[in-house]
Amino acid sequence: MAGASSRGSIARFEPRNPAWEKKSREIFERQSFMRMIGARIAALSPGTCDLELPYRDDLCQQNVFLHGGVITSIADTSCGIASSTLLSPDAGILSVEFKYNMMAPAAGERFIARGRVVRPGRTLTIAESAVFAVKDGVETEIGRMLATMMFLEGKGAMTAQGA
Amino acid sequence: MAGASSRGSIARFEPRNPAWEKKSREIFERQSFMRMIGARIAALSPGTCDLELPYRDDLCQQNVFLHGGVITSIADTSCGIASSTLLSPDAGILSVEFKYNMMAPAAGERFIARGRVVRPGRTLTIAESAVFAVKDGVETEIGRMLATMMFLEGKGAMTAQGA
Amino acid sequence: MAGASSRGSIARFEPRNPAWEKKSREIFERQSFMRMIGARIAALSPGTCDLELPYRDDLCQQNVFLHGGVITSIADTSCGIASSTLLSPDAGILSVEFKYNMMAPAAGERFIARGRVVRPGRTLTIAESAVFAVKDGVETEIGRMLATMMFLEGKGAMTAQGA
Amino acid sequence: MAGASSRGSIARFEPRNPAWEKKSREIFERQSFMRMIGARIAALSPGTCDLELPYRDDLCQQNVFLHGGVITSIADTSCGIASSTLLSPDAGILSVEFKYNMMAPAAGERFIARGRVVRPGRTLTIAESAVFAVKDGVETEIGRMLATMMFLEGKGAMTAQGA
Repeated sequence: MAGASSRGSIARFEPRNPAWEKKSREIFERQSFMRMIGARIAALSPGTCDLELPYRDDLCQQNVFLHGGVITSIADTSCGIASSTLLSPDAGILSVEFKYNMMAPAAGERFIARGRVVRPGRTLTIAESAVFAVKDGVETEIGRMLATMMFLEGKGAMTAQGA
Repeated sequence: MAGASSRGSIARFEPRNPAWEKKSREIFERQSFMRMIGARIAALSPGTCDLELPYRDDLCQQNVFLHGGVITSIADTSCGIASSTLLSPDAGILSVEFKYNMMAPAAGERFIARGRVVRPGRTLTIAESAVFAVKDGVETEIGRMLATMMFLEGKGAMTAQGA
Repeated sequence: MAGASSRGSIARFEPRNPAWEKKSREIFERQSFMRMIGARIAALSPGTCDLELPYRDDLCQQNVFLHGGVITSIADTSCGIASSTLLSPDAGILSVEFKYNMMAPAAGERFIARGRVVRPGRTLTIAESAVFAVKDGVETEIGRMLATMMFLEGKGAMTAQGA
Repeated sequence: MAGASSRGSIARFEPRNPAWEKKSREIFERQSFMRMIGARIAALSPGTCDLELPYRDDLCQQNVFLHGGVITSIADTSCGIASSTLLSPDAGILSVEFKYNMMAPAAGERFIARGRVVRPGRTLTIAESAVFAVKDGVETEIGRMLATMMFLEGKGAMTAQGA
C-alpha cells in the first residue's frame, strides 16, 4: 500500500482514517505521563510526529542531564503517534518493543524526538525516532530509537496498552 | 574476576569498592526523575538491584496502564544501579543502549524492576531487567530489558550522564 | 494458557500441536543455511531448543573467532525453533526482530545456543537465547539474544519467511 | 571531530588513518565467513560501506528466502566496515551489540546492506544498516539494523573479535 522510507527521502503515507489527525492527537492527550513531564506535539503528518519537551529539573539523571528514561519515553511516544496516523478508524496501537542508543548527554534547554514510520504493515509497523537536544539554538542528535508497533483491530483495541 | 550469570543461577560478583552500597544508593538518590515518579530501591546486592514503583494516575498511557516509558525508566535504572555496585571507587557509569520488550499491559498496584548484571566488564557491562506488575498480590512478568552499560574511569566520570 | 518463565525457573509450556516435535524438526531441516554451516538440534522440548555448531575455519571473523553473524544465526534459529514447538498445527512462524549482545570472543571447539520462550502469545512470542562457547570442555557464555517471533495462522503461513 | 548524520543528509567523516581504505578492505577480506557466503564490498567511503550478496540456494530459510542470520551477517559487517574507515592506524574494532528488524521477506536475486556511521566516538561508534532486496531490478528495503561498535586501541587490538 505505502512504500518504506529510504535513506534521505521520506515516503508518503496514505492515512486509512480521514480523521487521522484528531485521532492521533487524542491518543497523545490521553497519555497522562506525557502531560506530566510537559511534552507536546510540535509537528504531525501522516507517518511522522515530532514531540518537544522543555528541560526541567525534576526529570534528571543528576543536575543537568535528562534521565535516559525520559528521553526514551518521548522517543517511544513519537514512534507510537507517528504510527497511529496510519491506523484505521477502529484500530488501536501498542508498542511491542524498542531499542534506544544514547549517543550524547541529554543536555539542553529542550529536546525534540522526531518519530518516523519506516515500514507500515497490517499488523506490525516499524518506526524510528531521532532525538535532538537544543542548546543555545543548536540541535545535536543525542539518541536513536528503532521500534516495533502493533495495530489492534476492532473491539477493545482502544483499551489496550498504548492505544 | 567475576563469572557471567547463567540461566537459573545468579553469579556472585565481587565489588571493587568496599563502599559499593553507599555509592550505588547515592547514584540513585541523585536521580531527580526517580524521586519524582516515586521509585525506591527495594533490594540491593553486588550485581543486583530491585526497584519498586507504586502505581500513580499521572504516569499512565491512559487510565489504567503505566506508560511504557515509565516502565523502561525503572528497568534502565535497575540495570544501571545493579551495574554500579561493581564500579571502582572513582568510576562513573552511563547507559549505552537498551532494548525493552513489552510482554503484557502494565496493570497493577505496583511494579518491580529486577536488574541483574549478566556479564561484568572493564569498560562495558551487560545487564538485564525483568519487570513485574503486582496485582492483588500476584506478580506477572510484563517486560524484559537487555542493556549495555559503560564504566567511566577517573576524573570527570561522575559528571557523565548516568553517573 | 502457558505462564511466562521467571528468573531461575523454566515455565512449562503446553504444545497446541500433538506433533510439535516432528513439526519443529521439519522447520529446522528445511533451513538450508543451518545445514550448510553444520548446525544441529542438540535438545528440544516444549518452549526450548538447544542448537549445537562445531567450529569451522570458513565461518570466521578472522582465524580463530566465529563471525558474529554465524553466532547470531544459531541464536535466532534457537529462538525460532523453541517458539515453533508452541505453534498450532496449521501455523507458521517468522522472526520479527532481535537484539544480540556479544559478551566475549566466540572462541571454542563448538558453540551452543540455548533458546527459550520467555512469553508465549497468540500472535507474538518473546524468546531469548544464551550462547555458549565450549573450549576444553568448559562452557563460557559469549552472548545473549532477546527476540520477538510472530505466529502466522492459516493458509500460506508455511511459505512465509522463517516458517 | 566529525558530526552525527542527520535524517536525509550524510555527515562527512574525516578518516584518522590515511590508509583507511586499504585497512577496511583487509579487515573485510580476513573474514572467511563473508568469503564463504559470497559477499563483496560494492562501495566504500569514510563512514559508509555497501555490501552485496547474490542469492544462493544454500543460504536459505527454506526454498526462496534468505536466512535472517545471513541478512543479519551482512548488515553487521556493513556496519563494522563502515565504522572501520574511521579507525586510527593501530586500532581494531568489534561489534558490541545490534538490533535487527525484519520488515519484508528476503526474496530477490541479490541483497545490499548499506552500512552508515550515525555517530562516531572515541570508544563507541553507533552505526546503522538498511538492507535491500533486488528483484527484477527493483530495490525493496527488507530490514534495518541499529548497532554499537567498539574501537580497541593499541597492541592486540587486531586480534580481538571483529578486528
